[in-house]
Amino acid sequence: MNTQSELILNDVPVCDTFAEAFTTVGTRIIVTALTESWVRIAAAEVCGYATSVIACDAEAGIEKYLTSNESPDGRPGVSLMMFAFSRSALEKAVINRVGQCILTCPTTACYSGVPDSGKDKNIALGNQLRFFGDGFQVSKKWDNRRLWRIPVMDGEFVCEDQAGTFKGVAGGNLLICATDQKSGLLAAEAAVSSMQKIEKTILPFPGGIVRSGSKVGSRYSKLKASTNDAYCPTLRAQTNSDLPEGTGCVYEIVIDGDSFDAVQQSMQTGLKTVCQQPGVLQITAGNYGGKLGKHHFHLRDLIE
Amino acid sequence: MNTQSELILNDVPVCDTFAEAFTTVGTRIIVTALTESWVRIAAAEVCGYATSVIACDAEAGIEKYLTSNESPDGRPGVSLMMFAFSRSALEKAVINRVGQCILTCPTTACYSGVPDSGKDKNIALGNQLRFFGDGFQVSKKWDNRRLWRIPVMDGEFVCEDQAGTFKGVAGGNLLICATDQKSGLLAAEAAVSSMQKIEKTILPFPGGIVRSGSKVGSRYSKLKASTNDAYCPTLRAQTNSDLPEGTGCVYEIVIDGDSFDAVQQSMQTGLKTVCQQPGVLQITAGNYGGKLGKHHFHLRDLIE
Amino acid sequence: MNTQSELILNDVPVCDTFAEAFTTVGTRIIVTALTESWVRIAAAEVCGYATSVIACDAEAGIEKYLTSNESPDGRPGVSLMMFAFSRSALEKAVINRVGQCILTCPTTACYSGVPDSGKDKNIALGNQLRFFGDGFQVSKKWDNRRLWRIPVMDGEFVCEDQAGTFKGVAGGNLLICATDQKSGLLAAEAAVSSMQKIEKTILPFPGGIVRSGSKVGSRYSKLKASTNDAYCPTLRAQTNSDLPEGTGCVYEIVIDGDSFDAVQQSMQTGLKTVCQQPGVLQITAGNYGGKLGKHHFHLRDLIE
Amino acid sequence: MNTQSELILNDVPVCDTFAEAFTTVGTRIIVTALTESWVRIAAAEVCGYATSVIACDAEAGIEKYLTSNESPDGRPGVSLMMFAFSRSALEKAVINRVGQCILTCPTTACYSGVPDSGKDKNIALGNQLRFFGDGFQVSKKWDNRRLWRIPVMDGEFVCEDQAGTFKGVAGGNLLICATDQKSGLLAAEAAVSSMQKIEKTILPFPGGIVRSGSKVGSRYSKLKASTNDAYCPTLRAQTNSDLPEGTGCVYEIVIDGDSFDAVQQSMQTGLKTVCQQPGVLQITAGNYGGKLGKHHFHLRDLIE
Repeated sequence: MNTQSELILNDVPVCDTFAEAFTTVGTRIIVTALTESWVRIAAAEVCGYATSVIACDAEAGIEKYLTSNESPDGRPGVSLMMFAFSRSALEKAVINRVGQCILTCPTTACYSGVPDSGKDKNIALGNQLRFFGDGFQVSKKWDNRRLWRIPVMDGEFVCEDQAGTFKGVAGGNLLICATDQKSGLLAAEAAVSSMQKIEKTILPFPGGIVRSGSKVGSRYSKLKASTNDAYCPTLRAQTNSDLPEGTGCVYEIVIDGDSFDAVQQSMQTGLKTVCQQPGVLQITAGNYGGKLGKHHFHLRDLIE
Repeated sequence: MNTQSELILNDVPVCDTFAEAFTTVGTRIIVTALTESWVRIAAAEVCGYATSVIACDAEAGIEKYLTSNESPDGRPGVSLMMFAFSRSALEKAVINRVGQCILTCPTTACYSGVPDSGKDKNIALGNQLRFFGDGFQVSKKWDNRRLWRIPVMDGEFVCEDQAGTFKGVAGGNLLICATDQKSGLLAAEAAVSSMQKIEKTILPFPGGIVRSGSKVGSRYSKLKASTNDAYCPTLRAQTNSDLPEGTGCVYEIVIDGDSFDAVQQSMQTGLKTVCQQPGVLQITAGNYGGKLGKHHFHLRDLIE
Repeated sequence: MNTQSELILNDVPVCDTFAEAFTTVGTRIIVTALTESWVRIAAAEVCGYATSVIACDAEAGIEKYLTSNESPDGRPGVSLMMFAFSRSALEKAVINRVGQCILTCPTTACYSGVPDSGKDKNIALGNQLRFFGDGFQVSKKWDNRRLWRIPVMDGEFVCEDQAGTFKGVAGGNLLICATDQKSGLLAAEAAVSSMQKIEKTILPFPGGIVRSGSKVGSRYSKLKASTNDAYCPTLRAQTNSDLPEGTGCVYEIVIDGDSFDAVQQSMQTGLKTVCQQPGVLQITAGNYGGKLGKHHFHLRDLIE
Repeated sequence: MNTQSELILNDVPVCDTFAEAFTTVGTRIIVTALTESWVRIAAAEVCGYATSVIACDAEAGIEKYLTSNESPDGRPGVSLMMFAFSRSALEKAVINRVGQCILTCPTTACYSGVPDSGKDKNIALGNQLRFFGDGFQVSKKWDNRRLWRIPVMDGEFVCEDQAGTFKGVAGGNLLICATDQKSGLLAAEAAVSSMQKIEKTILPFPGGIVRSGSKVGSRYSKLKASTNDAYCPTLRAQTNSDLPEGTGCVYEIVIDGDSFDAVQQSMQTGLKTVCQQPGVLQITAGNYGGKLGKHHFHLRDLIE
């Protein structure tokens, strides 16, 4: 890897490599509530336990918060994005998550944040959850859209019938090599703060950061992935390390988005931020040789 | 229901009924991290999407935060409780949740918060997650306990080998009937704040509160549960309502704990708090006639 | 007042009146720190107890948070605005506030957020605080600016020598008449959320909202201002009320900014948001007949 | 100083010295509001800009938050402590702070948190603020206490007539010498988290931590205090340093309390926590030779 470090940004070596990302199916859900505080509670619950589709039913995160005059019903809201490998997997995850975490949550309502993408490409939302109303639910028109009003104990849960979907890009990433854990964490946090402002993207991991990078395969046959020993600072003496001299800590930031451009913009913002942070020794990206994922984000393109 | 309202607390009618709760299997996990901020991020991620075992893999929540001198490794921490219907279901949920949300999260470590409950009753934790280390993991003794040190990009993920379990009690509850949504929400929030201080219990729903109470069964054969129309204020004219005159909103608080006593103490604290809040018309509890759940929490016992 | 309600926005009556605001002297200070968490702590401390220049030494608030790549030193930051009646009063307040709340605060640095406004119009910042360095302070050039590096226990406090000032506008306002306290508070909170996004303005009161509107004068000779009884819902029977029928609560939002346009834009955003909130009966604004303050913000102009 | 390091706690050298603290006048104010969120806003505003009585009108901070069933009016609340050098200075500061930051803040009420300490020793609270009511205020009895109901735009501001005072102890302190800024900050943050749990004490500085330790006097005649160069890591080569070899950062934690015992308990808790943190080289305390302050907290007593 070190041989690839021909690029420099703000005196920090940037490997001349690329992040490899995958095509997924994504959707956007708008959740509103009586207060900002309840919007935040609902968002945290429904986007929890959704870091990686390898072992979670979806990857989910907050795109942005909405003020009352930006939201569909004049109340505080939040725009959430969720991704899965197939439309059916996404539909199943979204319905169960909204059913368990939003339907149950005081004062919330739930809308599609993606325009109608046609019968074939929409996923059911209220269309499925309405049955909870046990026949007391009623539908209402809202321009060309359909909402369900489902009676619940605090009034009615308003939920849009369908949510559109889009082809998403999942797995954009940056790898930050730092001198030590604290410097690495501060640099990654700085990048996350900047990247959270980029619309049409989410950072699905806890606080936006991953510390358990993995490689494909393992010496245990049952395990498809295992720790990426080449990036573990404590294994330098035991393995064929890819880390530059002096690296004490590596963090990864993973980005999902609704398009190549959105993910690229987020990566560029992150790269520029990280290069200004003290203690950063090198920036690189993760790929699988380019054969598994359709989307290649070359770090070179983010600099020039 | 109204006929049961023979009890009075602080001028608020309390129905002479009981909450019916179930026996489950529970565990307690201690998560620590470099900073309080990262403890909070980890806790929110790992306890997300865990409101009800009906459709989530576990019910999970924060028992309490731990200062550096209360935690096992001198760092800020949090004590989490998780519940499922069987030990094997709990083990599966905990391993996957910790693997996706804690192993991945910067700087965290994970310990059992329950004493060794014997080989038969423990669940695997590090014992399973260690394989991610791809052979580079090492175990270390810690008094009579065993920890795994699993190499990751920011150093090592320290994870205890096993977590003890206990017979838990899930589904303790209070139902708050209020004049309107805002009064009901403030009353429920006040109760939640008080109840969060009771150790050995969690409130698994978003912000501790449920607004979608359900009854067993539905007019749709495929649905096992549906909205509890008798508690929906908007359905008063269409159904056989159980709500006192003037009720505009009902909220439920659900409590899980490690014993009957802990859940009862939480319910008592909540009941006393709710009775002091303006706009509360009646307090009751949910049960299934007493035949499904082993634990009966009589509101009468909480008052006298 | 009711006779002035000839305007309507989203079915809500808007009084055809104006907010009367004053010319003040303002400055903008950029504070950075090692982490976002410390930026927030510093901002809260230095902007506390700064609601009204009637009895505080300054009016202060957060203009906006800055990500690492938006701040002067590549660290998380915040842009603060402070206002007083004169340059000398502002200088005194800023130096004391920065000296007590930023100089003391771990890891912070402090920069001017206003371009050099000329020797006569700048206020001293590091130029005064540097003496704390007891001769060990050193200055350094930063383009055309001068910074002081003042030795402290956690390293050095970097503080810009001077901060520019500008003619500010203080006292833009909206008055929201609502049916009851909870509706009024939610409507005002919604407006505040929208208005906090408007750059070049701050909302100096707690949470952006005032509930103690005052009139000039009092029946007690020593008091220059007292409760505006015409706007107190509980005094309707005892006084010459200006409140529309059914008003149970009134909240005011006060806006300070660096120009007429900035304050006007904030007021317009707030007005539009409030008009979409349930329970709002009327929106008006406060003035003193137009003779005291130079700036008049006519609500009519915000609608048309 | 190093010669005093005869004590050891958890392998960390503790100087055999003492913290020197002063007698002050203190009070405790209970503020309640409609929601926890508004309690927090009010507390932050009223306790802002109150780090040190050297240049602020008071030292103020949060003692603890109160749930609805712990507060005087069944609403969420907070207990605040404020200190000044004399009763008259304290009264002036408290009245102005409550008048500007609590009277103005939506939905709040304000009570004394100290029992009546007799006419001579109470300070006026509502007794002074009531005049804002312009004659419309009314008093009501509350057991043996007197409350004022002052009409404001969102209803009434309820404020107790008098607040008791007590002899306070201000200036208890710990000094933490660490290898570098990040380690020092984490160690100090850990200590603060533990110390915030100790009742009857506050930590008046931003986030509980001071980085600008000062010595008495200065080479500039007009300045009574200046940077404590003996504790500035960057000045080691230029001054007679008191810092142990390898110190890159020092943080101080200052404690105010209502008694010697409360401050001592807080210091002890902090000391024990700090000694468990990585990167801590030495712990000491600040004094003026013992002649200025009445209260001496010997670190030796905290260990043995």
